[in-house]
Amino acid sequence: MSSPLEFLRFIDENADRFIQRLGQAVAIPSISGDGTHRQDVFKMGSWLEDQLKSLGVETKQVDLGKHTMDDQELPLPPAILGRIGHDPKKTTILVYGHYDVQPASKSDGWDTEPFELVVDSETGRLIGRGSTDDKGPIMGWLNVLEAHKALGLSLPVNMRFCFEGMEESGSEGLDDLITSEAAKGKKGWFDGVDCVCIVVNLSQSDNYWLNTRTPCLTYGLRGIKYFKVTVSGPARDLHSGAFGRMVHEPMTDLVLLMSKLVAPDGTILIPGVDDMVPGPSSEETAIYDALDYSVQDVVDAVGAPITLSEDKTTLIMGRMRFPSLSLHGIEGGVRETQHEEQARFGESARRKPWIADYKHWNYEAAKKATEAVYKKSPDLTREGGSIPVTLTFAESLGVNVLLLPMGRGDDGAHSTNEKLDRSNFIEGSKLLGTYLYAVAAATE
Amino acid sequence: MSSPLEFLRFIDENADRFIQRLGQAVAIPSISGDGTHRQDVFKMGSWLEDQLKSLGVETKQVDLGKHTMDDQELPLPPAILGRIGHDPKKTTILVYGHYDVQPASKSDGWDTEPFELVVDSETGRLIGRGSTDDKGPIMGWLNVLEAHKALGLSLPVNMRFCFEGMEESGSEGLDDLITSEAAKGKKGWFDGVDCVCIVVNLSQSDNYWLNTRTPCLTYGLRGIKYFKVTVSGPARDLHSGAFGRMVHEPMTDLVLLMSKLVAPDGTILIPGVDDMVPGPSSEETAIYDALDYSVQDVVDAVGAPITLSEDKTTLIMGRMRFPSLSLHGIEGGVRETQHEEQARFGESARRKPWIADYKHWNYEAAKKATEAVYKKSPDLTREGGSIPVTLTFAESLGVNVLLLPMGRGDDGAHSTNEKLDRSNFIEGSKLLGTYLYAVAAATE
Ligand SMILES: [Zn+2]
Ligand SMILES: [Zn+2]
Ligand SMILES: [Zn+2]
Ligand SMILES: [Zn+2]
Repeated sequence: MSSPLEFLRFIDENADRFIQRLGQAVAIPSISGDGTHRQDVFKMGSWLEDQLKSLGVETKQVDLGKHTMDDQELPLPPAILGRIGHDPKKTTILVYGHYDVQPASKSDGWDTEPFELVVDSETGRLIGRGSTDDKGPIMGWLNVLEAHKALGLSLPVNMRFCFEGMEESGSEGLDDLITSEAAKGKKGWFDGVDCVCIVVNLSQSDNYWLNTRTPCLTYGLRGIKYFKVTVSGPARDLHSGAFGRMVHEPMTDLVLLMSKLVAPDGTILIPGVDDMVPGPSSEETAIYDALDYSVQDVVDAVGAPITLSEDKTTLIMGRMRFPSLSLHGIEGGVRETQHEEQARFGESARRKPWIADYKHWNYEAAKKATEAVYKKSPDLTREGGSIPVTLTFAESLGVNVLLLPMGRGDDGAHSTNEKLDRSNFIEGSKLLGTYLYAVAAATE
Repeated sequence: MSSPLEFLRFIDENADRFIQRLGQAVAIPSISGDGTHRQDVFKMGSWLEDQLKSLGVETKQVDLGKHTMDDQELPLPPAILGRIGHDPKKTTILVYGHYDVQPASKSDGWDTEPFELVVDSETGRLIGRGSTDDKGPIMGWLNVLEAHKALGLSLPVNMRFCFEGMEESGSEGLDDLITSEAAKGKKGWFDGVDCVCIVVNLSQSDNYWLNTRTPCLTYGLRGIKYFKVTVSGPARDLHSGAFGRMVHEPMTDLVLLMSKLVAPDGTILIPGVDDMVPGPSSEETAIYDALDYSVQDVVDAVGAPITLSEDKTTLIMGRMRFPSLSLHGIEGGVRETQHEEQARFGESARRKPWIADYKHWNYEAAKKATEAVYKKSPDLTREGGSIPVTLTFAESLGVNVLLLPMGRGDDGAHSTNEKLDRSNFIEGSKLLGTYLYAVAAATE
């Protein structure tokens, strides 16, 4: 079950060098959402590929074509595929990560230069854009590979890698790549994959530890569906001075309509929606009861006593399993004295929910590895948002997918002063290696 | 009652030259809301002052100080004051106008260059920024002055002028100028003013003819009051994936609150507000009944059958006398999956209502002048919006104020392809001159 002691010791002894490598990665401003940084995303992809190669991984850059962003046609950053180990007796694990980052500049309010990794020796924080999302987790895998190469240890599993450079900008081209690569079977790079491990700290779902104390494994995502409602009225924008109380105003109707969708206590007023999700089993309730989480944690996280329930289990189920309806993006009637032709809210898009079998050996292995490294059982969580690639892997490969967060709930991905704690990086690297051994043991 | 025939003939005979002068004014892009054009606003002020001087008007440029716009400190364009005629036996009329304009560029969708006056000989339209708002009306007064100078006629009244260059940007500095100048009494430029005539086509109140057929006099403005409502919740922006259905969302509460303010049929739901405005007298109702206006006119103007009433008089009272509540500027929860710290709508500001005595000789004179020039009785209207300077003149000078629109309801001030019809410009110039004679006759 446990990894070799020499592996754990190697990680500890090389911690400073590993942090330096994270610094090299952070120094490349691979911002996928800013066309002027597109060459940096390519540079980061090549840097990552070189690292993998130097650690014995066979790699391939996959051209994903072009796309249009801000009226400019740009080449998409490549997917970096990799494989190491072809032992048919070993289990094969596919690992996903993304090497692009969110925009950042000091003028946004960063205390330090975002693309220079700062090691705060007092707090142990490694501060920089991409430290937790998602360069730190990717470096975790490099650390594991390097340790085994340096020690002359063979990996306990076969590994496959899939890294993309467009995650922060909609993962363009990735779904097609995964499904076509999966469809290739024995000829594809995902041949023989037995399970998937995603070590991403995706801000969209805030897929981190629930807090700063207890590691977690995530086995479900609520999914998202956007609806857009448009109320039309006059054929052009009108002046409320000239037409107010003469004609029907779209914004008045839209606001009334929206007020009928969700109650202030979170109840969804659209008939039948709340009924579509059956109540939890006692086994599921027991999972929520066991979480290292309190009502006060939520109050602390949001900075105000505005929780919808005083009961911890009810509260966490609001996030993890019940449907939630939020009102967003109301447009129209922008100018003070003008009411517009149309009033509208929301955007139309859909991401399906995903739930994994948390009793699968993939989860059992991650649980045992967590207990070995952190001396603590992980929280078993679901998240309120969506990580589309999770579902794509699960559906196209037909295998169990594990979300194994490396960071803490206060890392601030997508925010200023993004950080990864040194202990999360170093112990997290140990966790990844130990997880490989636990998978090997569980599937022997 | 009527003006000298030679005056009317002079206007007709010099029409093309007057249109050329309007073209010179339009060619100066005196956009007050764009700091890069501030020198053009000054240039326009000096051009106007030179014109007045050449027509025998004594003038003064009043420095209104500085202001800050878009983080830049800029000198305010001067007010141009003028006076001509000091005959104590004559009535003194104060005229207001503004020489600044709204921004315009061909890329906004103009069919022609906005700062080159285009004369469409087929439709008779004079197309260009400022043609109707407010350079055309100002040129109307210059035409009257020029005719009298050229013909050697003395004006039937004493005239005072107050032109500003910041109307499109909040009239900064003007209220103080008017009140301080009024307070100077005999030593001020407004000494002896008996009435005010404002020939502005202010988009904010759409103070034009009600349609394209019948001239109007405007004797009331409904006024405006803005309220801003802010609903606060969490201490920072939250992710709806992570906190949806865990905490109270400001936008949910705000929408519910807003839905209680006004009904889709225009009824104001806040107790007592609709009751604050007493119903119309039969005399007032008769004014609305007499207006050259139909339900179909409203449908045509807004481009859709969305009127709140099928009864013409009820419909027009919604605009002209009843309170109206519009919902605007809803902010918060902008990003698809994010709900913000605060949700808020509206802006806080106030402009008081204004109603003039339409039986005053000032209005009687304008009515008779309109009948003489247009062979038609003018509509007697109130408007739904606000023209702040109207109230400032009325209160600081204590005299009757007349709004005498020159343009038609379809002129498109503040829009692309702003125009003034040639006939409105030329007949409008005759109307202004005839109005002066009518005032003189009425106050003899
Ligand atoms: Zn990420
Ligand atoms: Zn991210
Ligand atoms: Zn104007
Ligand atoms: Zn205007």
